[in-house]
Amino acid sequence: MIVDTLAIVGPGLIGGSFSLALKQAGAVREVLGVGRNPARLTVARELGLIDRAVDWAEAGQADCILLALPVGETEAVLKLLAPHLKAGAIVTDAGSTKANVVAAARAALGARAADFVPGHPIAGSEQSGPGAARADLYQGKKVVLTPQADTRAAALATVRALWEAAGAQVEMLEAALHDRVFAAVSHLPHLAAFALVDELAQRADGDTFFRFAASGFRDFTRIAGSSPEMWRDIALANREALLTELDAYVAALQSLREAVAGEDAEALLTLFSRARNAREHWIETQD
Amino acid sequence: MIVDTLAIVGPGLIGGSFSLALKQAGAVREVLGVGRNPARLTVARELGLIDRAVDWAEAGQADCILLALPVGETEAVLKLLAPHLKAGAIVTDAGSTKANVVAAARAALGARAADFVPGHPIAGSEQSGPGAARADLYQGKKVVLTPQADTRAAALATVRALWEAAGAQVEMLEAALHDRVFAAVSHLPHLAAFALVDELAQRADGDTFFRFAASGFRDFTRIAGSSPEMWRDIALANREALLTELDAYVAALQSLREAVAGEDAEALLTLFSRARNAREHWIETQD
Repeated sequence: MIVDTLAIVGPGLIGGSFSLALKQAGAVREVLGVGRNPARLTVARELGLIDRAVDWAEAGQADCILLALPVGETEAVLKLLAPHLKAGAIVTDAGSTKANVVAAARAALGARAADFVPGHPIAGSEQSGPGAARADLYQGKKVVLTPQADTRAAALATVRALWEAAGAQVEMLEAALHDRVFAAVSHLPHLAAFALVDELAQRADGDTFFRFAASGFRDFTRIAGSSPEMWRDIALANREALLTELDAYVAALQSLREAVAGEDAEALLTLFSRARNAREHWIETQD
Repeated sequence: MIVDTLAIVGPGLIGGSFSLALKQAGAVREVLGVGRNPARLTVARELGLIDRAVDWAEAGQADCILLALPVGETEAVLKLLAPHLKAGAIVTDAGSTKANVVAAARAALGARAADFVPGHPIAGSEQSGPGAARADLYQGKKVVLTPQADTRAAALATVRALWEAAGAQVEMLEAALHDRVFAAVSHLPHLAAFALVDELAQRADGDTFFRFAASGFRDFTRIAGSSPEMWRDIALANREALLTELDAYVAALQSLREAVAGEDAEALLTLFSRARNAREHWIETQD
C-alpha cells in the first residue's frame, strides 16, 4: 500500500486507468471520485473506477489527489480544493503541458504548492471517458514528472512510486524543456494533422480527394481524430513553444519546397534518406 | 484466361503481386520478367513471380506488358521496348504519377501510344522488392486508370479486366486530376512526414525529442519510412501539383498559427472539430 486514499478529479480514461492499475497493484485502499460532472462520477462508480463520489471537502482529505482534466481547468479546480487540503496531502496532475500547470498551482495553492507534483503520462488514445479506462494503459509507458526546486521530496517520491506501481517508467524533465519537447513531438503533429484534413475538407471538390485517400493518409491523420476541446486547451496552454515549433516546421516545408521547385534531386534524396534513417533509428530504440 | 502472356518490367512488390494475383485467378497463362537488374529477375523466378526471365525483344511479344518501375524510368524503358512491340500488344504501368507517364509514353511510343493504358494501383507498403509480393495485395484496393482520348478501347478493357481479376476496384480519372488528387492525399503527406522527422533529427538535442515521441508521432511519421528514391522521383514527376499543395498546406498552417498566436480559442475549436468530423465521415465511407 503506497497511499490509503486516492482522489481522482475527473475519472475518465486517464484518471480511471490510474485507479484501476493502482487497485490491481494493491497500491491504494480506497479511490474517491470528484468533479463537476455528476453523471460521469456515477458511470465511474458503476465501472469500478472509483469507490465513492465525494465533494471537494472530502476529496481534500485524501492522501493523494490526481487531477485528470483539460489543462485549462487546473487553476479553477485547485482553487476549489485548496481550502480543504489536509496537512500532508499530495496533489498531482496528468496534464499534457507543464509550465502553465506549475503557474496555476502556485496561484491556487500558495505555500502548499510544495505539495504539488506536476506530471504527464505519455499514454492515451483517441477514445476518452470512463468507459475507455483500462488497468494496463500505463504498462511500459513513460510518465514525465517536472518537480520544482521547492517540491517536497516525500511528495515526489510518493507520486513516483504510484506511477511505477501502475506499470509506468518515470522520467524527470525541467518543465520548460518538457513543454518544448512535447510541442515538437506531439502538439505540432496534432495541429499539422488537423490542418491537413481541414484544408482538404474545406475544398468544394474535397470529396474527390478523400475518395482516393488510402492507408498512408489514414495513419498520418489518425491524431486528427483526437478531442478538439483537449487540443484547443493544449494549443493555448503551450502557445509559445508551439509557435516556435510551427515556425520551424513551416521553414522546413519551405526549404523542401525550394528543393522541389528547383528540381534538386540530390537535396530531396538526402533529406528523405536522412529522415528515414532517423526514424528507423528511433523505432529501434522503442520497446 | 484474359491474356495468354504477361510481361512484368521490374517484378518487385507491385509487379510480382500483380502476377501472383492473376495466376491465382487463372487470368494469365505465362508471366515473363524483364528488367535491368538480372539478380532481381532470378529472385522473382525463384519466388514464382515470373515463369521466365526474358530480354526486351521477347518481352515485346507478350500480349500485355506491365511497367512496375520508379516513374522516372518510364520513358527510357518504353524506348527499349518500342522496337519490339508486337501488333496488338498492350502496355500499362503502375506509376504513382500519370501526366508525366502519359507524356513519356507519347514520346517513346509514337502512334503506339494508343496501346498504352496509364494506371496507378493504390496499394503498397514500406516494404519493396520481390520478397514482399503477395497475391492479395490488391484485394479490395482501388486502381485508377487515366485513359487518353486516343487510348484503344480494347486495350483499356483488357487492363481493366486484369486489375479486376486481381481483386481491385477500377476507377477512371483524368490524368491531371489524378495528379492533383494524389499530390494532396499522398505526396504532400509523405513530404510533410519526411520534413518533420528530418527537422527534429537535425537538431543538436534531437535525441531528447525522439526519446519522448510516442504512438501519435509513430503513426504521423510512418510514411517517412518509405523509399527515398521512389519519393524523390514522385516529387519531381508531380512537381507542379505538389508545389500547389505545399503552398496550400503552408497557408493552412500559417492561418492555424495566427489562431494560436491570437489565442483565438473559438477558431481553434472550430477548425479541430471540422477536421475531426471530416475524418470520421471519411473513415465511415472506407471499407
